[in-house]
Amino acid sequence: MTTDNRVGAHGPTGAGDLARLSINQQTVRQLSIPQLARCCRALGIPGVGLWRSPVQACGVRRVAQVVRDAGLTVTSLCRGGFFTASDPGQWDAALADNRTAIDEAAALGTNTLVLVSGGLPTGSKDLVAARERVAEALGQLVPYATEHGVRLAIEPLHPMFASDRCVVSTLCQALDLAERFPAEHVGVVVDTYHLWWDEQVPGQLARAGRSGRIAAFQLADWITPLPEGSLLGRGQLGDGCVDLRGFRERVDAVGYSGPVEVEVFNPGLWHRPGMEVLEEVAERYREHVW
Amino acid sequence: MTTDNRVGAHGPTGAGDLARLSINQQTVRQLSIPQLARCCRALGIPGVGLWRSPVQACGVRRVAQVVRDAGLTVTSLCRGGFFTASDPGQWDAALADNRTAIDEAAALGTNTLVLVSGGLPTGSKDLVAARERVAEALGQLVPYATEHGVRLAIEPLHPMFASDRCVVSTLCQALDLAERFPAEHVGVVVDTYHLWWDEQVPGQLARAGRSGRIAAFQLADWITPLPEGSLLGRGQLGDGCVDLRGFRERVDAVGYSGPVEVEVFNPGLWHRPGMEVLEEVAERYREHVW
Repeated sequence: MTTDNRVGAHGPTGAGDLARLSINQQTVRQLSIPQLARCCRALGIPGVGLWRSPVQACGVRRVAQVVRDAGLTVTSLCRGGFFTASDPGQWDAALADNRTAIDEAAALGTNTLVLVSGGLPTGSKDLVAARERVAEALGQLVPYATEHGVRLAIEPLHPMFASDRCVVSTLCQALDLAERFPAEHVGVVVDTYHLWWDEQVPGQLARAGRSGRIAAFQLADWITPLPEGSLLGRGQLGDGCVDLRGFRERVDAVGYSGPVEVEVFNPGLWHRPGMEVLEEVAERYREHVW
Repeated sequence: MTTDNRVGAHGPTGAGDLARLSINQQTVRQLSIPQLARCCRALGIPGVGLWRSPVQACGVRRVAQVVRDAGLTVTSLCRGGFFTASDPGQWDAALADNRTAIDEAAALGTNTLVLVSGGLPTGSKDLVAARERVAEALGQLVPYATEHGVRLAIEPLHPMFASDRCVVSTLCQALDLAERFPAEHVGVVVDTYHLWWDEQVPGQLARAGRSGRIAAFQLADWITPLPEGSLLGRGQLGDGCVDLRGFRERVDAVGYSGPVEVEVFNPGLWHRPGMEVLEEVAERYREHVW
């Protein structure tokens, strides 16, 4: 494991090597959106990935104005999804909520809405049926998303989340779903944290690249032990065992040239000054990704 | 989630429907091996799966005598493996330890030694190289195992263990390794806990069945949230979301007719009287598996 504390060792931040970097706001949850915008601007980081709940708390229009004024690009909005309810009322509510998410993405000026599919419905043991439910939901939402200029981006989550969070566990499954729709309307999210272990990823990336399906590329490192509940155990870039540079080169090699979004859920980062964490992310990005 | 406490509701235990049941001793860690043997005999459970450390503590010959006297079959010995060290001294030590494990399996009268491959070597990010190291170790050990009448059984572990415990994450990868050797010498372990999420399992089971590669079949249910470290969060049969009966029927359908070993690592079971836990396992097995 690398533990590199040489923040700023390479001198002042230049924009060139950070030109594709985006910070997902969950990485620095301690910062408000205006604070995040100021810090990114100061460091030459051109993109941010936002989450619905803090965006709603701040106000969608205000957030749109703040990021525009800072010259930032919103690279993605997280997240829609949670489509697997078997109860008709919950199903309708999920679709309505996803339409709102599409509205929000459009208002923020991002064309990428990340979708986390949802887990098994209560009492169900049928993953195949749950995935089919995701396809049905996509069918319902694609026309609305298309009208609003938003592309739906299916994110496969690590198999440890298959029962309670996301029945789509591999890039192959995400592509199987996406390919039922035109590439310009439905893509996939490639996240190193969720996919690093899967030997089929190189072949599936080639498949995704050929058809222009990569809607977003997110980075976090894999570290152990996992914390209780598994959610908040992601590693800062370089602290774990993922070959981040190799992964990024592979994603680029299949034709992706979009934002590279750092999304690390780790309370250890949230307890430090946000600006310090962002400087470290930029440094680690240069050292381990670029 | 099912919570069935009707232990004994079906009356006294008959041997017929338990004829293939085996209890892995980690399920009732609170019982000594002699206690486990007595309880299994009393309940009509014909098989036990043992672990090296408690076997060594009790004495291999004594354990062999105890299980023989109780009329039990040792269905597997857990575990050899941990083959991925890059340090030559550690590598040699791992091979020597695996030869001892083969001796122990032979002394216990089981022909199945379960292998957990090991995680990434310290500082490595190369899963492919680590898996190749596993193949090398198998090549070294197969002649010795064959001489002693022991079959090596490669166990794929859930991808959440890929970095620190087992670089073999899928049934497909386990078969890719096993098929480098004759089927009578190297097989695979099919464990519902590790494999339930993988949509490729049905096809891979067919592949394993065709070539006679299924050396062991183990059961545990998948429950969330996972505890810190992820190791001890397995569910009692029926408490989780795995279609255990469907899985068992599929394994049988490809030609497997061997032991069905229940291996649940869960401190909640260890804090209860062992006999009560075993009665519950038998009851859940009838209800959810058989």
